[in-house]
Amino acid sequence: MDTIPSLTNIKRAHQRISKITLDTPVLTSQTINEMAGCEVYFKCENFQKVGSFKMRGAANMILGFRSEERTNGFATHSSGNHAQAVALAAKLAGSKAYVVMPKNSAQVKINATKDYGADVILCEPNEQSRISTCDQVIAETGAIFVHPFDDYRIIAGQATAAKELMEDVPGLHTIMTPVGGGGLAAGTALAAQYIDPNVEVVLGEPKKADDTFKSLQANKIIPVKNPDTIADGLRTSIGARNFEIIQKYVKEVVTVSEKEIIDAMRTIWERMKIIIEPSCAVPFAALLKEKEKYTGKKVGIILTGGNVDLSNLPF
Amino acid sequence: MDTIPSLTNIKRAHQRISKITLDTPVLTSQTINEMAGCEVYFKCENFQKVGSFKMRGAANMILGFRSEERTNGFATHSSGNHAQAVALAAKLAGSKAYVVMPKNSAQVKINATKDYGADVILCEPNEQSRISTCDQVIAETGAIFVHPFDDYRIIAGQATAAKELMEDVPGLHTIMTPVGGGGLAAGTALAAQYIDPNVEVVLGEPKKADDTFKSLQANKIIPVKNPDTIADGLRTSIGARNFEIIQKYVKEVVTVSEKEIIDAMRTIWERMKIIIEPSCAVPFAALLKEKEKYTGKKVGIILTGGNVDLSNLPF
Repeated sequence: MDTIPSLTNIKRAHQRISKITLDTPVLTSQTINEMAGCEVYFKCENFQKVGSFKMRGAANMILGFRSEERTNGFATHSSGNHAQAVALAAKLAGSKAYVVMPKNSAQVKINATKDYGADVILCEPNEQSRISTCDQVIAETGAIFVHPFDDYRIIAGQATAAKELMEDVPGLHTIMTPVGGGGLAAGTALAAQYIDPNVEVVLGEPKKADDTFKSLQANKIIPVKNPDTIADGLRTSIGARNFEIIQKYVKEVVTVSEKEIIDAMRTIWERMKIIIEPSCAVPFAALLKEKEKYTGKKVGIILTGGNVDLSNLPF
Repeated sequence: MDTIPSLTNIKRAHQRISKITLDTPVLTSQTINEMAGCEVYFKCENFQKVGSFKMRGAANMILGFRSEERTNGFATHSSGNHAQAVALAAKLAGSKAYVVMPKNSAQVKINATKDYGADVILCEPNEQSRISTCDQVIAETGAIFVHPFDDYRIIAGQATAAKELMEDVPGLHTIMTPVGGGGLAAGTALAAQYIDPNVEVVLGEPKKADDTFKSLQANKIIPVKNPDTIADGLRTSIGARNFEIIQKYVKEVVTVSEKEIIDAMRTIWERMKIIIEPSCAVPFAALLKEKEKYTGKKVGIILTGGNVDLSNLPF
């Protein structure tokens, strides 16, 4: 599949993954609505399998292969949610997963990935080592590489979160997601475009990792290097396929400060009693920052994940 | 109302409070089920208004008065969730609330109670000062006293959580709740007895505040004095009306250590991505401790509340 996913591709992805993903609940809070001045619908991907929407893309890609194509397993490199998603999706497909992780990854994440049955291969904590180690694993095993975001099958899988949200909550004015590599952002933009083109898609991005914001202004990808934002899921730069879709279908990118991210995260923890990771709080922070634009409207926010180190919270 | 609530009383309570309380969701987790060896259904009262089941009892009592009876408002003393419940229920009933709080209460709780429109009166941090200050407020204002647990109207209100749970999940083998003053525990025991007497009710109690456990053994109330358990909602001793119902209808009380409480709390945070307070984790800790009794069965647990100080977590 090397054309932008169609509505049919997204519908097929949804059918395919539904065996192993959850149709996560949409939660609301009167206090949050009063604070934001609009109706906010939170699509809780923090309750998704492996605690993140990443399960959707990995499931779509891995289940998209026939079983005889899957015999050599799947490989990826990731220090975060994508690692666990590939591990679990491969396991549930009856395949092997090889996950290259930087050796400074949180032990809890390494353990979780192993618990899902993956072979974890540690590498040096830099991009080059991740790629070369992963290439070597693929050369040795014949495993299929699963890119975390820059792949149309991944994008089609991530699009299913917005599809479910629009099915649950008709008449949304806007859907907001964070943007890192752009898998969810691009998938959401496509789903909205196909299912209800009146729905505007707005992305939240940390100021400290504002490569998508700058890339849209410059009309070309301007990567960011090792940004130190607390939103660890958004430190990656935007992918090529992702950027192309975002350029076409996203209304705007709103950047937010580290303080705005932490405050938004704490508000959701305190008011909604749910655990979200910092990356997750970015679109809500963006909504609060620009709330006068959304007065009285229905706004959907995809809460992307809930994997945080409870021993190391920012508050 | 000074007889044990009937099924009709509980049904009326449910009708009455439904205007201002939420029918909270029941969540499950495959990981938790595997860990416990049974099917666990969590009734999420941490998502209830004011973040706790206490809203149910307060709403039932306050809305049970005709509006001309409510003109002098309501008074209570509480350092915790009951304070906020009385404040909000009174506000939504169009009445005044006077809440006596120990002056060492967490500022965030005092602020929350004020935010719900209550007059907060600070007192010395001991039982005697709480009672005498509250009596004085009542003498001055003519407000109606709302006991946090030892009142049949409160018990009938708290019973509605188990009623909703049994309606949502038929065929439960056991329902577990924590026990402090016994409002929820007694209400749950009554609801089970009336709606499905096959459902066993089992209570979890901190070892450090095991007055109900000991009282049942002794066949009389043996209060506990200033227990220092982390489960701050369960430091109170069992009430008289509550004890009478629990003696009749509760199967057993399981006591758990502080470490078991903290571990159970952390497991729910990490695996379910929801925020629960320590008191809430007590019945789940009890289930894990005695899990061989429940293998393969359907167990409901009422998660009582989600109000925690995020700056002061036990992990």
